[in-house]
Amino acid sequence: MLQPTGAFKVRGAFNRMLSLTKDQRRRGVVAVSGGNHAQAVAYAARGLGARSLMLMPEFTPVNYLEATRSYGAEVVLTQSLAEAFHCVAKYEAMGWEYIHPFDDPLVIAGQGTIGLEIYDDLPEVTDVVLSIGGGGLAGGVATYLKSLNPGIHIWGTETAGADSMSQALAAGEIVQLSPVTSVARTLGAPAVTDTTLALAQRYLEEVIVVTDEEAIDSLFILLNDCKILTEPAASCTLAALDKLQLNFSRDSHVVLVLCGGNVAVEDLCQWRSDLPHTTVKLQPCLAN
Amino acid sequence: MLQPTGAFKVRGAFNRMLSLTKDQRRRGVVAVSGGNHAQAVAYAARGLGARSLMLMPEFTPVNYLEATRSYGAEVVLTQSLAEAFHCVAKYEAMGWEYIHPFDDPLVIAGQGTIGLEIYDDLPEVTDVVLSIGGGGLAGGVATYLKSLNPGIHIWGTETAGADSMSQALAAGEIVQLSPVTSVARTLGAPAVTDTTLALAQRYLEEVIVVTDEEAIDSLFILLNDCKILTEPAASCTLAALDKLQLNFSRDSHVVLVLCGGNVAVEDLCQWRSDLPHTTVKLQPCLAN
Repeated sequence: MLQPTGAFKVRGAFNRMLSLTKDQRRRGVVAVSGGNHAQAVAYAARGLGARSLMLMPEFTPVNYLEATRSYGAEVVLTQSLAEAFHCVAKYEAMGWEYIHPFDDPLVIAGQGTIGLEIYDDLPEVTDVVLSIGGGGLAGGVATYLKSLNPGIHIWGTETAGADSMSQALAAGEIVQLSPVTSVARTLGAPAVTDTTLALAQRYLEEVIVVTDEEAIDSLFILLNDCKILTEPAASCTLAALDKLQLNFSRDSHVVLVLCGGNVAVEDLCQWRSDLPHTTVKLQPCLAN
Repeated sequence: MLQPTGAFKVRGAFNRMLSLTKDQRRRGVVAVSGGNHAQAVAYAARGLGARSLMLMPEFTPVNYLEATRSYGAEVVLTQSLAEAFHCVAKYEAMGWEYIHPFDDPLVIAGQGTIGLEIYDDLPEVTDVVLSIGGGGLAGGVATYLKSLNPGIHIWGTETAGADSMSQALAAGEIVQLSPVTSVARTLGAPAVTDTTLALAQRYLEEVIVVTDEEAIDSLFILLNDCKILTEPAASCTLAALDKLQLNFSRDSHVVLVLCGGNVAVEDLCQWRSDLPHTTVKLQPCLAN
């Protein structure tokens, strides 16, 4: 959340696009996104000298649209996410390279560099808690950390209404959510894929589903006590801690990955006014 | 702003209170504050096993009161800041040790440790921009950095209505503000002191005064683009950059000290709704 574009997605976008030839960069990259992936691809494209075109549904929050354009991407608005995906083939036929938000080994490996940094900072790590949208972040970080130390526990988190991985794990197959109802829009992959489901089955202890309210409460705890702005899709990892506590001991070294902070202040204020006015009481900063 | 209690004040409080004898800690410390100093003294007192009592005006924002109590301090509410200061002598007579928010060499030296960290991180630093409330932070950081390299420029920032240092520098003597009108309540020392004025005269290039609106605009830029929560008393350093730019060159290495993040979400939302709805346009994160 403290990285360029306010989310982890630049890691995967850069790693994927570093593999493009000069000619491919000239022809350009196309991506579909209602959120952080668009900004990441646009940002990486600018950094690598590639053209970029984003297919974004017209209900995309204006702060996402503006940020994406500010990185130099051309934005094409579609009536729905489905229509945006439908357009991809047309651009691919014209020579544009499609950058998938998560179902791509290079994207997953890029997100996995967070695992590398966790291990560098805290080799004694025992538990890592990660958000799951499409599953690329969790899959990449888990693959890296488990290859170093299979004893590290990787926990996933989703919000109710955006729990495509939790449902897929329960069903043993991909489950199509329709529609995504959670406030954590950026968790809202309507379905995971074979690749990310397989990684989750192999590496994750469990996926914890929290409510929107719990994610928003945690967002305000992080804002008030740690002075950092997270989006619900990131703060849900803190919310999951309540349900995970029994798995931890005094010897646990638990890492929460706070993977994005792209929230409009207007949304923040709306959520605040919706909250019952209970006072948030907590120890000062979690980092202490 | 990322430190315990959400402000730099713990540095000065700890440094001052580490000099207390065991007997003094047992008798306790007393401080006057409508803001961050109370939290810092309470926090340091708990850490050092000292009793603490805070005299706070009853108009102190509830988030400050609650945070101060949460660190274990006893809070005595007074009708005004003046009455709070008036009470101090009574407690001193009873054996309590008074901890001044800034007019104390040990407090100033404690705040100055920020200078030490700046120099460790960025020995090529050319310019440092600091907020001025009573002047302890700027005085401490300037004393340290100037002793290492007199060529480093130190710039102060205040908001209009809380510009006690700017007015004192112009007048060549202490000027009593009454009342402090700025939204940057934590800059609101009604007057600087001989010690901090002398340090400012000796070490500061200039004190830039920005408006409340400019400080709040900068607060939202830092929140939106850098995902960090600052209070106006800290974000005013970013607002001052506009007026300072002519002093910088391509070879400048400019450090902004963001010294506090204690803002209630309610205030944030109030300020947002007061703002004209121009869209904040900026490069993503200042750190890039």
